[in-house]
Amino acid sequence: MDDGADTIGIIHSDRKDLAANVIAGTEETTTGVVRLKSMERDGVLLYPVIAVNDADTKHLFDNRYGTGQSTVDGILRATNLLLAGKRFVVCGYGWCGRGVATRARGAGANVIVVETDPLKALEAVMDGYSVLPMLEAAKQGEIFVTVTGNLHIIRKEHFEVMRDGAVVCNAGHFNVEIDIPALEALSTGHSPTRDFVEEYRLTDGRRIRLLGEGRLINLAAAEGHPASVMDMSFANQALASEFAVKHRGTLEKKVYGVPHAIDAEIARLKLESMGIRIDALTEEQRKYLESWEMGT
Amino acid sequence: MDDGADTIGIIHSDRKDLAANVIAGTEETTTGVVRLKSMERDGVLLYPVIAVNDADTKHLFDNRYGTGQSTVDGILRATNLLLAGKRFVVCGYGWCGRGVATRARGAGANVIVVETDPLKALEAVMDGYSVLPMLEAAKQGEIFVTVTGNLHIIRKEHFEVMRDGAVVCNAGHFNVEIDIPALEALSTGHSPTRDFVEEYRLTDGRRIRLLGEGRLINLAAAEGHPASVMDMSFANQALASEFAVKHRGTLEKKVYGVPHAIDAEIARLKLESMGIRIDALTEEQRKYLESWEMGT
Amino acid sequence: MDDGADTIGIIHSDRKDLAANVIAGTEETTTGVVRLKSMERDGVLLYPVIAVNDADTKHLFDNRYGTGQSTVDGILRATNLLLAGKRFVVCGYGWCGRGVATRARGAGANVIVVETDPLKALEAVMDGYSVLPMLEAAKQGEIFVTVTGNLHIIRKEHFEVMRDGAVVCNAGHFNVEIDIPALEALSTGHSPTRDFVEEYRLTDGRRIRLLGEGRLINLAAAEGHPASVMDMSFANQALASEFAVKHRGTLEKKVYGVPHAIDAEIARLKLESMGIRIDALTEEQRKYLESWEMGT
Amino acid sequence: MDDGADTIGIIHSDRKDLAANVIAGTEETTTGVVRLKSMERDGVLLYPVIAVNDADTKHLFDNRYGTGQSTVDGILRATNLLLAGKRFVVCGYGWCGRGVATRARGAGANVIVVETDPLKALEAVMDGYSVLPMLEAAKQGEIFVTVTGNLHIIRKEHFEVMRDGAVVCNAGHFNVEIDIPALEALSTGHSPTRDFVEEYRLTDGRRIRLLGEGRLINLAAAEGHPASVMDMSFANQALASEFAVKHRGTLEKKVYGVPHAIDAEIARLKLESMGIRIDALTEEQRKYLESWEMGT
Repeated sequence: MDDGADTIGIIHSDRKDLAANVIAGTEETTTGVVRLKSMERDGVLLYPVIAVNDADTKHLFDNRYGTGQSTVDGILRATNLLLAGKRFVVCGYGWCGRGVATRARGAGANVIVVETDPLKALEAVMDGYSVLPMLEAAKQGEIFVTVTGNLHIIRKEHFEVMRDGAVVCNAGHFNVEIDIPALEALSTGHSPTRDFVEEYRLTDGRRIRLLGEGRLINLAAAEGHPASVMDMSFANQALASEFAVKHRGTLEKKVYGVPHAIDAEIARLKLESMGIRIDALTEEQRKYLESWEMGT
Repeated sequence: MDDGADTIGIIHSDRKDLAANVIAGTEETTTGVVRLKSMERDGVLLYPVIAVNDADTKHLFDNRYGTGQSTVDGILRATNLLLAGKRFVVCGYGWCGRGVATRARGAGANVIVVETDPLKALEAVMDGYSVLPMLEAAKQGEIFVTVTGNLHIIRKEHFEVMRDGAVVCNAGHFNVEIDIPALEALSTGHSPTRDFVEEYRLTDGRRIRLLGEGRLINLAAAEGHPASVMDMSFANQALASEFAVKHRGTLEKKVYGVPHAIDAEIARLKLESMGIRIDALTEEQRKYLESWEMGT
Repeated sequence: MDDGADTIGIIHSDRKDLAANVIAGTEETTTGVVRLKSMERDGVLLYPVIAVNDADTKHLFDNRYGTGQSTVDGILRATNLLLAGKRFVVCGYGWCGRGVATRARGAGANVIVVETDPLKALEAVMDGYSVLPMLEAAKQGEIFVTVTGNLHIIRKEHFEVMRDGAVVCNAGHFNVEIDIPALEALSTGHSPTRDFVEEYRLTDGRRIRLLGEGRLINLAAAEGHPASVMDMSFANQALASEFAVKHRGTLEKKVYGVPHAIDAEIARLKLESMGIRIDALTEEQRKYLESWEMGT
Repeated sequence: MDDGADTIGIIHSDRKDLAANVIAGTEETTTGVVRLKSMERDGVLLYPVIAVNDADTKHLFDNRYGTGQSTVDGILRATNLLLAGKRFVVCGYGWCGRGVATRARGAGANVIVVETDPLKALEAVMDGYSVLPMLEAAKQGEIFVTVTGNLHIIRKEHFEVMRDGAVVCNAGHFNVEIDIPALEALSTGHSPTRDFVEEYRLTDGRRIRLLGEGRLINLAAAEGHPASVMDMSFANQALASEFAVKHRGTLEKKVYGVPHAIDAEIARLKLESMGIRIDALTEEQRKYLESWEMGT
């Protein structure tokens, strides 16, 4: 950056307090983008923001393959449970949720999806998962993961019907997805049984195990996303920042997407770094795609 | 419709000749939408078009689950080959291509993906497929399916290196994806070995088997998409047409998406028809999603 | 064979009538071997039999990959139903059953397994399937396949609780796995809706669709096993017959396994025919495996 | 046990030194059973042994689901590598090897299998894996796991062609599967990069990372098998010991299998403990299975 007064931000969603001299912000998370768009709508956005999360090379990879692997990893490090044959409930079938569902199934679990959006619910059905309302899933599940970006997904009415020994954790937003105060209110006490495992004893004798205090389990009990998926997210941060600096003064106080050219370039570089070669379109093919006179 | 002079079109991509008195058209295919957008860009679109293909309840289901199942079905009906252990090359990793790749893998095949778009190629890699340039895939593959919407994907240089007995077919656009004249030019003759299987004898003795004359194999040798995926596509056609009639006179000569409300309603109805219940957001959750003041 | 009086039999399980001058029989099916062992136990076996079914290169491939693919193929040809998202019940988790379950899951179905053997049931659970008693599965399923080698797997009490439109078929033994007389007794009538689909109308208005008259659906509606899996089964038949002729007079009236050397040779030849190379053990490795003095 | 002079052994394979007063031993591992059978063949077995490993409720679960999950878990804890899209080489396709291959694929890896037994190699092919000789796999792989029970699976000639950064580990027998002295001889030095990761620098600049000193990676870097799979293995140990005591004096110095009744009982108890109900055969079905007069 050219002078100390200006700032280009890799600003995480919980740091929205400072705005003076900011050229632009960049936002890394799904929930953060939702919030920033609400701020734009309400006219309270103080500087332009580039929604890095919405870049294909970010959310299609980081949210899906990164969260998918690291969430299951976190659960295993916390519990060492055998996943094969377990009824594993995934709450939320966004990019993160389907990553978690894919990896849980890949580990042999019998996956149940809970979703409020009819379209995503239908995709989950067609992907071969059982789709249930939360109350029904609560009765059947043995392990639960919330990945919604919303709050109180698992709450009093669900804890009341869970099986003895049920394990609940969160990989979505932060520690409001599971209503922990409600769990505490139902319990006579709680104590740790392993690192990252807190066992709540309910008045009727059942036990419910909360992992990582309801915080992101992949960060709490494992190491977060692998480097080889964060590299693309950070490349988006860096190139989006460069873009903002180059276009300083021309951006409005809005939420912008990452330009497609940046997105495509990151994918190209990533493939190259992995030693994977692909074809380019032939000249004939490029013309064909753009034309409406040839062919049918 | 209110009078004989007006037309609301469920017009397939190869029927662009008549425009007078058309309220709007609706377009069912990926390639058709690409073409119509080119026409809009060139200012030659003669009436508004609603891109039914781009509705989530269309392309996420019809293109993925419909084309996926029916393409593999068509190949089996044409050949009765065992797919387990076969090197199965999918050219194109769009929604149709990933449907085909998923089902081929699900049938035990060892799937290789060919793609020119770096982002899609990277997704294919992360989904666990081998990703290769076409020339390399041509050497290894035993069964090839083109699903690109483009032309001459498999051409002279590829036929020249294929294994004896290779099977080639198309599930993408129409019979230009495989360069059949090039195959004929390399051959000393050809003759049918089964229904929908034409065996080309190359001058060096190798044989290449073309299925269904290079036309859509799921229509040529099987029965096309199952009813339970076409119902959503046709619901989009019907409701998009209703939308166009209701908004007659207000739509420009552009390509429009299907309104989100229609898309969501179709998903809701489909789930209901399948007997699957899902939750709605609680009032608290709805507020939380829209707010930027609560939480982090 | 050296003279016309002797016979070497590739005798299918329903042809046990002639025994004079038979050097030996060979048996191709699981159920047939079970029966022949019962006959041996009861002292009524009239000549030696080689249990070709029990060769690894037979049952691990023919029963699993062959039956798996061709059963799903038969169901699709008969019904053209979309399998993605369907609750698909597999009765029996032997080699055939697990082949069917794998392919149904690979086609996107939500698979439920019914099994009476605790060990196999436990494997099905750990493989991620829902395991249910038949009566419960009958309530939930949309498509049912019997693959047990036993009789009356789906019977009156199950038909009584099935959903309207349920599809039932058999891929296991023969047309006794489904109790068709019981279905008829519950029905007011039946009529075909497609080739190989007979719709039974129950007195309460529900409809149940029986495929292929309850006969093996992969033979009734599809083409049976692909050639590239039958080649191994027939190689076992041929080489087992050769073995019997070479050992004529030395074999007792018992059920014999296929000699391991024949089994291994068929696997080797098959790999070679597919162009797949593998390593041999090094001399050092061979010694290590046989020793008990080296290493730990 | 009735008196102090007798011993019933849960004796692991590296504890074969004491034999006096032993009623019987039980053996938990595949390799141990192979060795004990060699000892029986050579007439040097000093007491009866029950091959607990060969019980279905042991090797089908412990070796497959236990080793499968915990090996991948160990690799992730040691490296935090993203498995999606990685070329992951599994050497050995026995029960452990196929468990590891299943879980690696389930984590999104592109799995290559190396096997010397033609039959197992053919199964791996039909299961959709790439099957290659070790030298070819060595060139392509990014992560290698040996699961063979043999020695020097990865040796000098393989290290010489590996890619820079390749990761090698063992989940099979013990630290002889990887020829570590050969790796050291090729290296100019080595140093740890993370816990359980030792990086060897080769003279040509390439780096090879050895995990857990070549010892069992699921024990070295993770927590070994989950309790819910070891419970079945230990139940076999306990009930096999009880069986031996009950039959003291009647067992010869041989390797015995676990009686089928014990095996079936453990499966039944395990299902019950998981809350999973299954059907029993009806009386009619039991008779049908045993008969050879009814049916076909």
